[in-house]
Amino acid sequence: MGLVNKGFVLWFTGMSGAGKSSLSVPVTEALRERGLRVELLDGDEVRTHLSAGLGFGKADRDTNVRRIGYVARLLARNGCVGVTAAISPYRAIREEQRRLADEQGAAFVEVFMDCPLEVLEQRDVKGLYKKARAGEIENFTGISDPYEPPESPDVVVRSDKDTIDEGVERVLGKLEELELLPRAG
Amino acid sequence: MGLVNKGFVLWFTGMSGAGKSSLSVPVTEALRERGLRVELLDGDEVRTHLSAGLGFGKADRDTNVRRIGYVARLLARNGCVGVTAAISPYRAIREEQRRLADEQGAAFVEVFMDCPLEVLEQRDVKGLYKKARAGEIENFTGISDPYEPPESPDVVVRSDKDTIDEGVERVLGKLEELELLPRAG
Repeated sequence: MGLVNKGFVLWFTGMSGAGKSSLSVPVTEALRERGLRVELLDGDEVRTHLSAGLGFGKADRDTNVRRIGYVARLLARNGCVGVTAAISPYRAIREEQRRLADEQGAAFVEVFMDCPLEVLEQRDVKGLYKKARAGEIENFTGISDPYEPPESPDVVVRSDKDTIDEGVERVLGKLEELELLPRAG
Repeated sequence: MGLVNKGFVLWFTGMSGAGKSSLSVPVTEALRERGLRVELLDGDEVRTHLSAGLGFGKADRDTNVRRIGYVARLLARNGCVGVTAAISPYRAIREEQRRLADEQGAAFVEVFMDCPLEVLEQRDVKGLYKKARAGEIENFTGISDPYEPPESPDVVVRSDKDTIDEGVERVLGKLEELELLPRAG
């Protein structure tokens, strides 16, 4: 029954292509396998359902991130895990979200998907960095818009060096250490 | 453990002052006392957190109601009860929300807070009907904007005839009948 009571927020942050989805999806699956109730609030899905019409300027990004955080906390206070995987580029807003989670007694675990910009531009799976460099996309994080890395993230995953399995292990290990997840066994 | 698995959506609808909050608050408390995880998505709170900037014209109202429904379903599919208490005046949108809940295998229980308009205008606790009649509030449901009552609600409560206790009993009784709530005792 302990599990049912201990909701928390698992907050992925990082630039486009840094591996937020690649890691948050298997982490979500792993947490479910361990018996937790988990909802992955993917940036794109949330934009469709909660933030249609919002743009990518700072004010609209902040609003979008705050909405994601609100829903994640609703889940957390009902014993679920709210996993968020939006770029969430601004440190102050992430810190605000941590504080709001703290205030309701829910843990907030920040996972920084770190990857050098040059690697992201080289990979450029969706071709977005090229378009951003060409000026075809405005307000693109890392190119024409800031990304403020966390100063003291709970977990750092280097997606250019760590395998997905290593990343999943690191996140789960931290959650076990924080006693948010019972040790496998 | 059955409880943990059976999330559902409990959807209150009715005009301003018809008793949505008066009933949804004690129902939420009663469900929590019976061990369910319950979140009350009050119309005003949701407007603050998810729908700031939206107005009261049909398109914006629909968007607001859809956002509430989305969050209620997120809760339901994680084994919680999403209670909504927004006016939700349009039948088609409520039916859409029922269908979306059905599609994800969650029950959708509609509670119609019924009360004759003349009684609402007479009570007028917040003075809103008077202002609406005077033209000081636009798009006011029941006065200058439509309210489409449910054709086959799961529960009807007449707030001008039923006591709050009777209303709570009726809602809980229906949830027991639908096997969404274990019988007390």
